[in-house]
Amino acid sequence: MRIALAQLNYHVGNFPENSARIIAAIEKAKVEGADLIVFSELSVCGYYPNDLLERLEFVREAQQAIESIAIHCKGIAALVGGPSINPSPKGKMLYNSAFFLQNGEIQSVHHKTLLPTYDVFDEYRHFESNKDFNLIDLNGHKIAVTICEDLWFDQKVMNSFGRENLYATSPMEEYCSQNPDLVVNLSASPFSFHQERMRKDIVVGNAQKYQVPVVYVNQVGAQTELIFDGGSLMVDQQGRVVRELAYFKEDFAIVDTREQAFPEVQAFADRNEKVYQALVLGISDYFRKSGFRKATLGLSGGIDSALTLVLAVRALGAENLKVLLMPSQYSSDHSVNDAVALANKLGVAYETLPIHSIATAFEQTLAQTFHGLAADLTEENIQARVRGTLLMAFSNKFGHIVLNTSNKSEAAVGYGTLYGDMNGGLSVLGDLYKTEVYQLSRYINREEEIIPVNTLLKPPSAELRPDQKDSDSLPEYDLLDALLFQYIDLSKSVQELVEAGYDEAIVRKVVTLVNRNEYKRFQAPPTLRVSSKAFGFGRKMPIVARYPL
Amino acid sequence: MRIALAQLNYHVGNFPENSARIIAAIEKAKVEGADLIVFSELSVCGYYPNDLLERLEFVREAQQAIESIAIHCKGIAALVGGPSINPSPKGKMLYNSAFFLQNGEIQSVHHKTLLPTYDVFDEYRHFESNKDFNLIDLNGHKIAVTICEDLWFDQKVMNSFGRENLYATSPMEEYCSQNPDLVVNLSASPFSFHQERMRKDIVVGNAQKYQVPVVYVNQVGAQTELIFDGGSLMVDQQGRVVRELAYFKEDFAIVDTREQAFPEVQAFADRNEKVYQALVLGISDYFRKSGFRKATLGLSGGIDSALTLVLAVRALGAENLKVLLMPSQYSSDHSVNDAVALANKLGVAYETLPIHSIATAFEQTLAQTFHGLAADLTEENIQARVRGTLLMAFSNKFGHIVLNTSNKSEAAVGYGTLYGDMNGGLSVLGDLYKTEVYQLSRYINREEEIIPVNTLLKPPSAELRPDQKDSDSLPEYDLLDALLFQYIDLSKSVQELVEAGYDEAIVRKVVTLVNRNEYKRFQAPPTLRVSSKAFGFGRKMPIVARYPL
Repeated sequence: MRIALAQLNYHVGNFPENSARIIAAIEKAKVEGADLIVFSELSVCGYYPNDLLERLEFVREAQQAIESIAIHCKGIAALVGGPSINPSPKGKMLYNSAFFLQNGEIQSVHHKTLLPTYDVFDEYRHFESNKDFNLIDLNGHKIAVTICEDLWFDQKVMNSFGRENLYATSPMEEYCSQNPDLVVNLSASPFSFHQERMRKDIVVGNAQKYQVPVVYVNQVGAQTELIFDGGSLMVDQQGRVVRELAYFKEDFAIVDTREQAFPEVQAFADRNEKVYQALVLGISDYFRKSGFRKATLGLSGGIDSALTLVLAVRALGAENLKVLLMPSQYSSDHSVNDAVALANKLGVAYETLPIHSIATAFEQTLAQTFHGLAADLTEENIQARVRGTLLMAFSNKFGHIVLNTSNKSEAAVGYGTLYGDMNGGLSVLGDLYKTEVYQLSRYINREEEIIPVNTLLKPPSAELRPDQKDSDSLPEYDLLDALLFQYIDLSKSVQELVEAGYDEAIVRKVVTLVNRNEYKRFQAPPTLRVSSKAFGFGRKMPIVARYPL
Repeated sequence: MRIALAQLNYHVGNFPENSARIIAAIEKAKVEGADLIVFSELSVCGYYPNDLLERLEFVREAQQAIESIAIHCKGIAALVGGPSINPSPKGKMLYNSAFFLQNGEIQSVHHKTLLPTYDVFDEYRHFESNKDFNLIDLNGHKIAVTICEDLWFDQKVMNSFGRENLYATSPMEEYCSQNPDLVVNLSASPFSFHQERMRKDIVVGNAQKYQVPVVYVNQVGAQTELIFDGGSLMVDQQGRVVRELAYFKEDFAIVDTREQAFPEVQAFADRNEKVYQALVLGISDYFRKSGFRKATLGLSGGIDSALTLVLAVRALGAENLKVLLMPSQYSSDHSVNDAVALANKLGVAYETLPIHSIATAFEQTLAQTFHGLAADLTEENIQARVRGTLLMAFSNKFGHIVLNTSNKSEAAVGYGTLYGDMNGGLSVLGDLYKTEVYQLSRYINREEEIIPVNTLLKPPSAELRPDQKDSDSLPEYDLLDALLFQYIDLSKSVQELVEAGYDEAIVRKVVTLVNRNEYKRFQAPPTLRVSSKAFGFGRKMPIVARYPL
């Protein structure tokens, strides 16, 4: 049996474009003599449509698109993902389904059993869980159709506190008790640092456990925050990788189920390279799918805006960027020089808009109101908000989308100005701790000094008052990031951190900062997710809560 | 049997305060000779803790708090809500439980069966569904313990497209087949316009259907966006309301299950009065639970800021408000006069900070960059952002939290400036369409002119350019709001709206505006929810989607 793996980049809700991509792949697979072509989860509408799934016309359009696609399935069978209406009068309205298309029509519909509802996933909001486990018969071959999480019954979930399984039913047990010749999985599995390894382990583990070949097709491309990295797989019944598709781009391959195992295609060796590719794809898809081409940002001479600019240039092209240098009286000469050097190095146009006169106008307007009061964070925030307003004015006038340059450490402890440097349509680095920003910057400079070395070496500073350094207000980043990672990403408690040897006063200060700044993060831009616990909709915390005290 | 209904206002995560409230109610109920006291859903930790439930130390603290409360349950039994750890190694880690406390200890734990995971509810994210339906025996009385949604098996869910039931299992069927003498329900049911009526119908409907008395205890108080209105009930087995507790405040009552039915306590006759009380509670709890007392806002002379100020004064006291008037050259004299008149009427301090010189400083700084280009939305947005920055400066210097004054119509179509008038810690009117803002304002003026009548009569204008009116850019609000309500709140499609007789071009324009402005709403402040479909976490839409085309 010859099976085509179609790893495509879908646009949520754009049925004409998604259908055209799917049909083109079907025609190609026909020409190449495939018996079956497999697409990814919810391919016809893109993953994830969120509450568009509550609109009946959306579900009907998905259905119509699948019927139109089915017409092309003559001489070939296809498995296409999409929502289907639950025919029972009880339970959620929809299933998350795979449509089996053959002979020009929908032959059968197969539903997802395990509905991830944790972190960034929210599927039980919209879908009912499958309870039927029927195999497909394709030319005498028995095929089990699973969807994404259905393979993940044996996952070890973060924060599950040593539990065995997150679910009570194993769809692979149900299907494999019927001895299928092949398991197919339609997937939409987003990138994070470790996801590629975990995913391959899961696919290989299922093949070995059930002694069955597995065809795994993942979505590729970014949907606002979530970056899907592809890496579709065919694994034989001994768990050997027969074929591995590309990462971070569309790909297509045909495999024969009788094929001998090939050597495993090399995964990305370097975490920084993966993050780099993920962020570039995240930026470019955000712009393309939103219908924008041009971007701007405030280039300060610091590491965060420098790295953001390098990634944006790679994603959008230097010709689509124009950046603003917005020095104040507290900006050091080296900051301006480093910013100019980077812009020139990258061939990016820039304008210099000093903020002093506007900041002064604010101070004069507020002079009577603030009479007799010392300067404090207020005046620092005014500078950040003047810059934010200049960027937005540039954006409004010329259509350049503002890229936010904050990092995860700042977002965590609230070391940033709401409506100031927290502005932007998309946060590029918001899921990288400051120490990770340095790592990725050094990686970018590994062969050539792209980011000025001075930017990498000087102590981090917001430059909002004379001789300010981040370390005036915060622990050094090595310590801060270690604490943040353990508190946020690993859900360690204050007690556990203190028992691990961290100073209790510092732990309590950091934890308090994290919790007190939920209100700021609530209004932050969408953030490209590259870790397994990003700020945003994958981490929902109440704003008025008081915990820990 | 004498049963105490304890309707309390909890603070999420504040175990000491919540425990103290619970214990005080237990002691009071003991003195008054109650056999059982009932609290609301997740009472020990407050509803809803969101991902704090993923922190093991949080769950353990909840457990310890319940054990400490149990010690007080001698001579009385209690039902207290809290999370409990699922003892099975399979499935989600937690149950949403009611702890039955008696003789100084936890006697049994009863779990929630139906886990709402739609709109603002997200319970399957954290909880496993109950499968045991054991009754409690209290002095020979058999009691079924249900939790909130467990009573809502027969609800008609919005967007369910005529489906019979959202769930497959009816916990009331399971319990009532065992003939309990009483059904108790621990609830956390947030306010919306129609919720009080729906809730009473549900409680009464269950009592009648199963011929059993129902004791229903709801939470009261606001948790950021969600406002819990109380209105706890005792209904006899014929569905007659025996006791109805207060709305929008804590309350306590003891009922005897043998009591005769009393006349139904009158519900609020007026929707405006309910919304008024809800918003006042929403503001005051946001401040109290966040540890703030003082607020500010920009008073423009328009209806939105006027209404917000009236509500804030009621919630926080005039002495805790200080507002800014920030006129530009486009502000009409009547706007300033109306703003001053209102501030004086309410006894609220104000300062006047003209924005002209700051806006001019921005224009001068940008003069070369914008050379030769006509003024457009850019310059309007600069004015809004200058005001937003002045408000934040005032907030930073004096600790007054900025109240956002945008309404739902503006939020829907993006008629507002991100980082400008969209600023604020809390959106007070963001779930009221403009026509509803007028309704509530007229209600406030029903006996006395509190909001200047001129503010109510003049055509709405942002006053960002000469003679500007909202109707220059938008359909008249009567038409706009009708379309928005049907598209957003009722999920009607473009086709349905056109078939209902609306002009197709206007429908498409409005729908496109709504969809294109997801990115703005993503960064909007938390919004007090008073309808059944508010913007925010109860309406999740993808940002880069393209639907409808």
